[in-house]
Amino acid sequence: MIRETIVTTQSAAGEAHLAPMGASVVDGGYLLQPFRPSRTLDNLAASRVAVVNFTDDARIFAGCITGRHRSWPTAPATRLATAVRLAACLAHDEVEVERMEDDPTRPRFFCRTVHRETHAPFLGLNRAVAAVLEGAILVSRLHLMDPERVDREMNYLSVAIEKTAGAAEREAWDWLCETVADHRARAAS
Amino acid sequence: MIRETIVTTQSAAGEAHLAPMGASVVDGGYLLQPFRPSRTLDNLAASRVAVVNFTDDARIFAGCITGRHRSWPTAPATRLATAVRLAACLAHDEVEVERMEDDPTRPRFFCRTVHRETHAPFLGLNRAVAAVLEGAILVSRLHLMDPERVDREMNYLSVAIEKTAGAAEREAWDWLCETVADHRARAAS
Repeated sequence: MIRETIVTTQSAAGEAHLAPMGASVVDGGYLLQPFRPSRTLDNLAASRVAVVNFTDDARIFAGCITGRHRSWPTAPATRLATAVRLAACLAHDEVEVERMEDDPTRPRFFCRTVHRETHAPFLGLNRAVAAVLEGAILVSRLHLMDPERVDREMNYLSVAIEKTAGAAEREAWDWLCETVADHRARAAS
Repeated sequence: MIRETIVTTQSAAGEAHLAPMGASVVDGGYLLQPFRPSRTLDNLAASRVAVVNFTDDARIFAGCITGRHRSWPTAPATRLATAVRLAACLAHDEVEVERMEDDPTRPRFFCRTVHRETHAPFLGLNRAVAAVLEGAILVSRLHLMDPERVDREMNYLSVAIEKTAGAAEREAWDWLCETVADHRARAAS
C-alpha cells in the first residue's frame, strides 16, 4: 500500500525541506524512494532520519508540486533531535533509515518508525481532496503527457471539485489549472 | 464542502443502521440529506440524533453500497444516550438535529455537533481509497448510467488500485467489480 504523504527532511545546515511523496507501507515503517537528484535524497542520505507527515490539506500537495506555495510551517520533531514535522499535520511518524539500496533513478530507503503522534482528528474523506491529489500527479508529469489526455482527466476530476470542494480545495485546484495554463503558454512560445 | 462519511443512526427498537453519506459542512455542524425512503431518514426523524463517523476504510463504503458487507461493529456514543458510533472510525462527531426542512426526495436535516472524539491517527491519503469511493458512487448509479461510461471510469480508477492499494482496498474494489458484473448479468437475462 502506498500512502500519499508529506516527507520532511533537514539539511546539515538545519534547513527544512517538504516533499509530497508516496510512502510504501512496509513492516514496521516505510519504503521511501526519492528521485535523483532531489533535496529529500540528499537530506535523507546525510541525516538518516525523516518525518512522514499525514495531512489531508490539498493545498500542501498542490502548493509544493506547482511551486505556488512551498513554505508551510514546520515544528520540531518529538523524538528525533535533527528532524522537523509539518506543523499542520493530522498525525506524523518519525523514521530512521535502516537500510539504503542505491539506484540510478530512485534510491530506496527502508525506514523504521520510531515515534508516532496524533495532532488533530481526521474529519472525513473528501472527493475534492482526492481530485487535487490526482491533478497534482498529472501536473508533475505534464512534460510527459499528451495535452488531450491531461484535459480529459482534469475535466473528469473537476466534477468532484465542483460538487464537494471547500475553499482550500478550490484554491489548490486553481494552482493546478494555472500551472497547466503556464506550461501550455511556455510550450506555445 | 462535502465530507464522505458513515452516518450511524438507531431505530426506536435500538437497531443500529450504517449509511455512507455525504455530509455538507455547515457552521457548527452538518447538513445531512438522506434519500426518501431510507432507514437513515426514518431514524433521524424519530430520534433527532446521529453520529457522523470519519473513516478511511474503503471496505465500509464499498461493503454498504454493494450490500456485500453491511454489518460493521458499532460502539455506544459518548454523549448521546440513544446513538452509536462506528467502532473502527478514526474520529466521530455526535450530532443533534436542530432543524428539518422537508423535501419529496431528500429532506434536509441541519445538525449541530455536540461532541467530537478522536480514536486513531489518520495515516495518510491513499489514491486507492479515493478510487474505491468514486467506484462506489458509480455502482450506486448503475441503473442510471451508460455501461460504456461505467467501464471507462472504472478503468481509469483501476490504475490507482493497481499502483497504490493494500489488501483492504483490493477487497473493496473486488466487491464493486462483482456488483457491476452482477448488474450486467441481470440486465442481460
